[in-house]
Amino acid sequence: MTDVSRGTTDVLVIGAGAIGALYGGMLARAGAAVSVVCRSDHAAVESGGFDVRSPWGDFVFRPVRVLRSPAECTRPPDYVLLAVKVVRGLDRVALLRNAVGPDTVIVVFGNGIGIEQEIADAFPDHELISALAFVAVSRVGEATIQHHALGRLEMGNFPRGVSARTQQLAALFQAAGVPCDTKAEVLASRWLKNLWNIAFNPISVLGGGLDTRAILAPAEGIDFVRRVMLEAATVAAAHGYPIETGVIDEAIASTRAMKPYKTSMALDHEHGRPMEVEPILGNVVRLARLRGVAVPSLEALYGLLRMVQDRVEVD
Amino acid sequence: MTDVSRGTTDVLVIGAGAIGALYGGMLARAGAAVSVVCRSDHAAVESGGFDVRSPWGDFVFRPVRVLRSPAECTRPPDYVLLAVKVVRGLDRVALLRNAVGPDTVIVVFGNGIGIEQEIADAFPDHELISALAFVAVSRVGEATIQHHALGRLEMGNFPRGVSARTQQLAALFQAAGVPCDTKAEVLASRWLKNLWNIAFNPISVLGGGLDTRAILAPAEGIDFVRRVMLEAATVAAAHGYPIETGVIDEAIASTRAMKPYKTSMALDHEHGRPMEVEPILGNVVRLARLRGVAVPSLEALYGLLRMVQDRVEVD
Repeated sequence: MTDVSRGTTDVLVIGAGAIGALYGGMLARAGAAVSVVCRSDHAAVESGGFDVRSPWGDFVFRPVRVLRSPAECTRPPDYVLLAVKVVRGLDRVALLRNAVGPDTVIVVFGNGIGIEQEIADAFPDHELISALAFVAVSRVGEATIQHHALGRLEMGNFPRGVSARTQQLAALFQAAGVPCDTKAEVLASRWLKNLWNIAFNPISVLGGGLDTRAILAPAEGIDFVRRVMLEAATVAAAHGYPIETGVIDEAIASTRAMKPYKTSMALDHEHGRPMEVEPILGNVVRLARLRGVAVPSLEALYGLLRMVQDRVEVD
Repeated sequence: MTDVSRGTTDVLVIGAGAIGALYGGMLARAGAAVSVVCRSDHAAVESGGFDVRSPWGDFVFRPVRVLRSPAECTRPPDYVLLAVKVVRGLDRVALLRNAVGPDTVIVVFGNGIGIEQEIADAFPDHELISALAFVAVSRVGEATIQHHALGRLEMGNFPRGVSARTQQLAALFQAAGVPCDTKAEVLASRWLKNLWNIAFNPISVLGGGLDTRAILAPAEGIDFVRRVMLEAATVAAAHGYPIETGVIDEAIASTRAMKPYKTSMALDHEHGRPMEVEPILGNVVRLARLRGVAVPSLEALYGLLRMVQDRVEVD
């Protein structure tokens, strides 16, 4: 077990769930001074840190400070990692407001499309990094994180480019042993990654909690997933991020080959947590409407998912 | 309570569920000699008949004979009412095979589109009536049927026309007090009725058991229902049964005005019973493909519903 907690780069992680704790912890391992804002598990994290179980080596991540709210932040960090989910009722701008100083770089993690603009509008003078985590990680108990597999990061400035500060952050991750690629067109990566999410997440929920194997079992399932992905690719292309159709067949084939997997949206729904409907699906539908791109399958999924989300209980 | 059981027209009801018992019972009230084939509740029905609670007046329906199988039928009836659901694994032709004599008229009840051709092909020399029940009725206990509301029938010969035998059957229903209209184009009635079913049934299942109010609560819900109905209307028109769009708005408005209602498909799904996916949705999708009509919303619903139906349990 490694226990590292001090360094020279100041980092604040807002939303120390599985993703925030894993990557915050890895930055701490690389020597950064990492504090966290976390409400659940606060006492446990304060007393014993996060217990992180990872193929990269198990370790305890003891944050420099464990805050209940960003308002408790006394010194602006060099980087804020915003690792909260993009869901209804959570005001990400308000969370950042008290945490950023004039030189703080904002790093936005999270699934989906169109999750940066709101932050960019609220903090027009701040550098903004968009980051994608290709990782299977979950909170398995109080202050306990299980990193199951994968873990690569991709990041770049929003809307494009790779600044010196972005390169420094990537180097810090790499120093910790985290595969981290900088991307001059990080939104292209985002559209590509969302291709999988936009198909499998809504379908898994609407099918009543289907995993990937159940979704791809009937021939109609494969056809439908392909249609959904093709529509999403058309929207991406209309926004300057073309995706080759070979990528779609490859995504379906590799999903069929992998162990059956239940999506985060299905798990959120089962546990009564808000789902990432807008970043993964709703924003794409709106961008399609904006460009006049027909996305009937996406519209169908969105219409159904809105009903599930807004569900009025009657019985 | 009225107890009527003998008459001059011989009728055999195959599938004495809620619909079969109600309408079989009403024919008996009009003086027909009605026998039934029923497996569940067989002993209870044989000893005490069906207890039918209805706005038309409560009554006990004592069938002339209560058979376990159509093979027990010794004398071919004048009419066979086939009132089983059209679901996978149920061979309707086999059920009819032992029950029909040379002069037996086959009357097909049931939701959806395209449920007659298979019967017509198997019994090319028999007169075939297609019948629609606009009724809210359910089995509420052993041999106990609750007729909640409505009850009108529409019937006509397949594929079109109204024969003397059809008029006789309609007159028998009318004599019992059942509103019954004969239709020269009964398939037009079928397409019209299916407009409601093709939208609300699949959506209620995919939304996780939504009732009509929950489906129509978000604006996206109304839009989506309208899109689904418009696509179904396009397929109907392509097959010679045009439906005015005013009918769609009227269907949505009247559904919003009525008491929240959970569809039969949602109830079937909740109780682990097979769903009427093919008659209500799948056959329409296939008819659309046949004519090259684009039905992306229907395709989406069908793809999702097939996954739900074929669900592979993994956990």
